[in-house]
Amino acid sequence: MTFAELWQELAPIGRDPGTGGYRRYSWTPADAQGRAWFTRHAEALGLSVEPDRNGNLWAWWGETRTGAIATGSHLDSVPDGGGYDGALGVASALAAVKMLKDKGFYPERAVVLALFTEEEGARFRVPCLGSRLMTGAVDPDTARSLAGDDGVTLAEAMTAAGADPVRLGPDDDLLGRLAAFVELHVEQGRALAPLDAVIGVAEGIWPHGRWRFDFGGRADHAGTARFADRNDPMLPYASTVLAARQVAAANGALATFGKVIAEPGGANGVSSSVRAWLDCRAPGGESLDQAFTAIHSAAADAAAAHGVTLTVSKESYTPLVRFDETLRDRITGVLAAAGTDAPVLPTGAGHDAGILAARIPTAMLFVRNPTGVSHSPAEEAHLADCEAGVRALALVLEDLAR
Amino acid sequence: MTFAELWQELAPIGRDPGTGGYRRYSWTPADAQGRAWFTRHAEALGLSVEPDRNGNLWAWWGETRTGAIATGSHLDSVPDGGGYDGALGVASALAAVKMLKDKGFYPERAVVLALFTEEEGARFRVPCLGSRLMTGAVDPDTARSLAGDDGVTLAEAMTAAGADPVRLGPDDDLLGRLAAFVELHVEQGRALAPLDAVIGVAEGIWPHGRWRFDFGGRADHAGTARFADRNDPMLPYASTVLAARQVAAANGALATFGKVIAEPGGANGVSSSVRAWLDCRAPGGESLDQAFTAIHSAAADAAAAHGVTLTVSKESYTPLVRFDETLRDRITGVLAAAGTDAPVLPTGAGHDAGILAARIPTAMLFVRNPTGVSHSPAEEAHLADCEAGVRALALVLEDLAR
Repeated sequence: MTFAELWQELAPIGRDPGTGGYRRYSWTPADAQGRAWFTRHAEALGLSVEPDRNGNLWAWWGETRTGAIATGSHLDSVPDGGGYDGALGVASALAAVKMLKDKGFYPERAVVLALFTEEEGARFRVPCLGSRLMTGAVDPDTARSLAGDDGVTLAEAMTAAGADPVRLGPDDDLLGRLAAFVELHVEQGRALAPLDAVIGVAEGIWPHGRWRFDFGGRADHAGTARFADRNDPMLPYASTVLAARQVAAANGALATFGKVIAEPGGANGVSSSVRAWLDCRAPGGESLDQAFTAIHSAAADAAAAHGVTLTVSKESYTPLVRFDETLRDRITGVLAAAGTDAPVLPTGAGHDAGILAARIPTAMLFVRNPTGVSHSPAEEAHLADCEAGVRALALVLEDLAR
Repeated sequence: MTFAELWQELAPIGRDPGTGGYRRYSWTPADAQGRAWFTRHAEALGLSVEPDRNGNLWAWWGETRTGAIATGSHLDSVPDGGGYDGALGVASALAAVKMLKDKGFYPERAVVLALFTEEEGARFRVPCLGSRLMTGAVDPDTARSLAGDDGVTLAEAMTAAGADPVRLGPDDDLLGRLAAFVELHVEQGRALAPLDAVIGVAEGIWPHGRWRFDFGGRADHAGTARFADRNDPMLPYASTVLAARQVAAANGALATFGKVIAEPGGANGVSSSVRAWLDCRAPGGESLDQAFTAIHSAAADAAAAHGVTLTVSKESYTPLVRFDETLRDRITGVLAAAGTDAPVLPTGAGHDAGILAARIPTAMLFVRNPTGVSHSPAEEAHLADCEAGVRALALVLEDLAR
């Protein structure tokens, strides 16, 4: 199957017919369909597909199974996410192996295609959960009890999907077999287009944290409670949203509140609580800490001014990632030799490659995003650019697995 | 049955075991249980219970059925509402009839107990929907197609509950039979306690509007989209929350955002839209208009500054209500003669009595709320005060129906 055919078959899985965006969440029926699509096509290529202890899938090409070159990405999405984020790397991995097989290449080192689970953290709130479990960055007991908005825990969701949550945990055996991981991903942001470049190579990933802010007030009647008698958590929340933007802008960081839940949620009542999630990223760990501290402090001041309690809990934190320079130089060299000038770019987005970078040499290839929009149904990439991505990935795998 | 026994039986219906608050929404199973409770006890008193064309229930005492004295309230709640709001008026009406029957009183004019539907607008977003339909203040076709957060329309919900939505509409025949409506309600706010009074009488209801603010932006990746490239609707929403408080405080009005929905709701994404509901009330129609205009203008400015669209739609508007002065003076006179000094109070809360006031003489009795908290699981009233309320209502009904 060509890349375009693979892509066409994947497209409807988990897509919301109303918005056109994806709601492909871990351990749901849509997730099972995505795994089946991956398994079917990997097996059609003669690869052997095995789940690891953390629910990630691995499709092996080659017998050795040591010193392997891994590639792949994820299929899960944010709510109403775009079709390319993650999925492009998985489909490109399958298409690149097909391309290499068609030209008669046989890898000296094994090539293995990875399908990571819960990369977005959209269901269980910890991004890159599959790779974090694998490297030991998340405690398995903590992971098992992570619950999404529906109250279902990861352990329950895995069990319901026919997977076994009991063996979750660090997988040094599997990590020990991997010599490198190269993740292809649609560009998020718009740096390649102005450079007239189709493919980019990642420099590193900004440190990134997610914090939950719980503002606790007291429900009351919107028509009778005097302002002086209210403890309305919506007001300090609003102040915090504005403070986060201001602080981040002043520090060259990014800060976003994209999820907020006001309880009890009546249009004619003062809220009893407002829970909201801060996503904050910055070029370095120190600047991220500074930005978070300033936002936290503004939130605490606003909460106190309204007699509202504030609890802030860190849901995830990923330190600055610098990808392996030797691997990166080798990749840019291979691409340059094939006539592709691939600029080196930083990014604020987290990826499984960033998690694995703590343990093995990793690199990332970016495919041009013409609008820069991501995590949105409007996310797009041109087919010709995606096909160029497949060729670039095939070149890299051929070089590394030779 | 005594008031306390009636109350005990009603208490568990629609109560959330987790929060202790009520989620008794129209045309749900909890609503059906509430109707059954009302019907059972009214029939035990020998009253004849009939639904009207709009889904309200009426329990008749007396044969004449013209020039009738109506009392009653509602059983539906806001999300996590208190137990007294509405329910106290219904239980007190039943208990007052019991008290009058026990003393051998027989009404010359009919007495009729009303159970209004969807007073809070918690499900279908238009408060006092049952009384508004009855007086013609809401178009029946509009009402039938009102949908809650679950997408179910009023027509569908009524049909599912075994009621007929086809006959919704103005009910001049029924209104023509009513000489007066007296609604007993738990006090919302805390004016009686400092006056050492147990029972109050309503002066009027502040005009009250509910508006939906739709901020439309563009979903994007929280880790890669530059601030300059974003159209994040959360920011103008936050500005509007703060502006609403400021404007209302400066104008002696009340303004509240208690319900907000951010889509798609991912913690690592910029929102595509933020929908939020403004509840605004003021002592007069002009001051309410001024407050709303200023809030709308602040929202529009903030939206424009972020390249975000703004659509504001009025979901409900209730003009200033002045209750009938003759009826009010008669009630305070009856209570004073019985040794109860009942202060006259204004209120910001809407009630079915406020809707019916446009067509027939109406009045309200308030029962002391020791904390002033309402629309909250913390709402309370002392049993002795509730019993005093029943006695006061019985005195008033006896006087009016004699």
